[in-house]
Amino acid sequence: MSKRSESRAAGMSVRAGILVTGTEVLDGRVRDRNGPWLADRLRELGVDLGYLTIVGDRPQDMERALEFMADQGIDLVLTSGGLGPTADDLTAEVVGRFQGREMVLDEALADRIEMIVRPLLRRWPNIDPEAIRTGTRKQAMVPKGATVLEPVGTAPGLVVSPSVPTGGPTVVVLPGPPRELQPMWSAAVETQALREAIAGATVYEQRTMRMFGIPESEIAETLRQAEGRGIELGKLEVTTCLKRGEIEVVTRYEPDAAGVYEEFERLVSERHADTLFSTDGDTVDVQVAKMLRGNESRPPRTIAVAESCTGGELTSRLTGPAGASEYVKGGVVVYANDAKVALAGVDPRLIEEHGAVSEQVARALAEGVRARMDVDVGVGVTGVAGPDGGTAQKPVGLVWLSVAGPDSASITRSVNLPGGRADIRDRATTVALHMVRRLLLGESDG
Amino acid sequence: MSKRSESRAAGMSVRAGILVTGTEVLDGRVRDRNGPWLADRLRELGVDLGYLTIVGDRPQDMERALEFMADQGIDLVLTSGGLGPTADDLTAEVVGRFQGREMVLDEALADRIEMIVRPLLRRWPNIDPEAIRTGTRKQAMVPKGATVLEPVGTAPGLVVSPSVPTGGPTVVVLPGPPRELQPMWSAAVETQALREAIAGATVYEQRTMRMFGIPESEIAETLRQAEGRGIELGKLEVTTCLKRGEIEVVTRYEPDAAGVYEEFERLVSERHADTLFSTDGDTVDVQVAKMLRGNESRPPRTIAVAESCTGGELTSRLTGPAGASEYVKGGVVVYANDAKVALAGVDPRLIEEHGAVSEQVARALAEGVRARMDVDVGVGVTGVAGPDGGTAQKPVGLVWLSVAGPDSASITRSVNLPGGRADIRDRATTVALHMVRRLLLGESDG
Repeated sequence: MSKRSESRAAGMSVRAGILVTGTEVLDGRVRDRNGPWLADRLRELGVDLGYLTIVGDRPQDMERALEFMADQGIDLVLTSGGLGPTADDLTAEVVGRFQGREMVLDEALADRIEMIVRPLLRRWPNIDPEAIRTGTRKQAMVPKGATVLEPVGTAPGLVVSPSVPTGGPTVVVLPGPPRELQPMWSAAVETQALREAIAGATVYEQRTMRMFGIPESEIAETLRQAEGRGIELGKLEVTTCLKRGEIEVVTRYEPDAAGVYEEFERLVSERHADTLFSTDGDTVDVQVAKMLRGNESRPPRTIAVAESCTGGELTSRLTGPAGASEYVKGGVVVYANDAKVALAGVDPRLIEEHGAVSEQVARALAEGVRARMDVDVGVGVTGVAGPDGGTAQKPVGLVWLSVAGPDSASITRSVNLPGGRADIRDRATTVALHMVRRLLLGESDG
Repeated sequence: MSKRSESRAAGMSVRAGILVTGTEVLDGRVRDRNGPWLADRLRELGVDLGYLTIVGDRPQDMERALEFMADQGIDLVLTSGGLGPTADDLTAEVVGRFQGREMVLDEALADRIEMIVRPLLRRWPNIDPEAIRTGTRKQAMVPKGATVLEPVGTAPGLVVSPSVPTGGPTVVVLPGPPRELQPMWSAAVETQALREAIAGATVYEQRTMRMFGIPESEIAETLRQAEGRGIELGKLEVTTCLKRGEIEVVTRYEPDAAGVYEEFERLVSERHADTLFSTDGDTVDVQVAKMLRGNESRPPRTIAVAESCTGGELTSRLTGPAGASEYVKGGVVVYANDAKVALAGVDPRLIEEHGAVSEQVARALAEGVRARMDVDVGVGVTGVAGPDGGTAQKPVGLVWLSVAGPDSASITRSVNLPGGRADIRDRATTVALHMVRRLLLGESDG
């Protein structure tokens, strides 16, 4: 569904590439968190992302990847990583050479880094000061004429334009640790060099719809119907994906195609009324947080969880958002049967009669934790996450879930989830959040 | 520290690239789990990974990335994603064109996909069968002469060699969902086409050491000392990285450099005796799981957690490994003060006198949950994860942790963790696991 290439051909859009460096990232030992974050920031700036490439700490591979991006007519390259004090951190040097700029020692910068590093060393009294100084001076070597971004950790960043005007992309060099990279990106955006590189970017609109409980092929069919109804899909870039059991439909368009998007959203709302749960991009996590949180007109609605097979993941997801302590009172992870009895007040006879993974026990967990923790909403989850413990009657992937609210409102369901242990735990958590959402919207089995 | 380029120059190693497709992955809406997994598999095969590139669902960008890898002399490209039934799934077609092979409908394959899809549709009675058939036939279009990998989900994979011998890399086309990609990779490895592409790969050794509680610059110093002592570091490819507060040192070498590695490991063990916790690659999660699990000579050691600021993450991490139900009895997430009292038996006067985030309350949580859940090891965590709730005395990032074992053994510590809410929760979980490990190894404050 990509129609963006047309507008690019018309020379309207500014294109970027992201180059993540680090053998540990290429190897998969460290997950790249910067690429996705920078992709979001580029979108906000109206810059189109073409490529994200990960290379190891090998200068030659880094150089080749930069050349590739330059060959594709990329206007802006963002690099992350390779700015540390060790000898395998080579990004600044490689970018300097790529841009035709000599490396020079910035003495004042070296002093500022030293000022940052010194107090950190108090934690390690036996450290070698000479080792530190060598690292500091290495980090203060910068390409001549580059704009320096002040370090948030110990590594400075750089905005490096080509030494010859119109000689290729501007390169923004950022450190690897996300909490250093993120504030330094904000500083980079303010620099003259970066502003020049992205002058003329078209700011696209982006909207997200989310659905729960239908297969992806149904969205493909909706897109075909949209074409049949004369909705000009060519003006929209629609991508759909399946994520944690939910379908996410993201659409980008130039501001003048807003009317086309409205028509498309209306069609989706008609065809998928029962499964569409978000048209503003909010995830179910955010929706649940908003519904639980208090406001001027009502106090918070409190929640507590009694979870078995999800092992703490549901409580962890509920407590993820800032301010969750206002409405999450707590949770119990009740792996062992006696924990189900002791912590969530499940009647041991229910477990004997129906087994720990059963409708009755899921209900008892939800109601038990609701009563014991004196909250508005109780959630119970019990299932077989595997890989062992499955039987013919209760196979790996079977999960019973129950939510209990005020006035005897409750919803109880079972699901048979595919995948391995981690998938089952993750999906069951998502199902539970959707059940909490529906209960808070007033649905109930009874 | 990369010295591999020398051996590559000597023509000894087979090089691969990974090409992940999908606008949702490039945008960062879906995390790429295939790249890291495939990187591990390539390493096992002795194939050197040069580049991992992510592109959106734009055929032109995909083609350019394939051309780039071919230009770099890459022998093998693995692609993931873009094999679904929707119109934006274009990988098979692009790879066919890139390899100079015409697309043909594999009728028998279309029938097999239909057989897989039909039973899945029973879950959705209102689905349009024609929409499904269109998707099925699209998925059965394959480049002429390619080796088909039978679908695990609904999408077949492909091994596509160039139509002209020595005409570039062999491309293995795999689906996006990890639980489809992984078994299909095993099938790909058995194909003649893939075996030919990687013939002659050198199988490298790889070893991992892990340290906890020192800065990365100390490892740089150790590497310098190694050179001073005449250890031939040129024969080792050492990469270090900081990960969840731990330092990971991964070393790759050709089999004949095993002696050099032994010398290097000995030096690290000497210099970092107090912080080196793993020389076999085991993470602290795995070490703790092994120590808790029972064996022929002793029963499992049971554990339970009372956690506040980590919100369920510690219990979730402890219950992650298969078989955790043998030793994890459960946990309580005690966000609210009354939950600390009711679920972990904390004396409310302790909270009044010292505050919820205090040494006394951390101890009471560990001891309380140990007694209440009748386990060998109790863990208590209480802290300020932020972004709000910090004070001058108890700033955001302050976390008190305590572990209590049999015979009054216990360890209690506070840490001041940097970063945002998610970082603090994550790091505190890691610190707690290290404290459990040390208690299980026999350490105690008392």
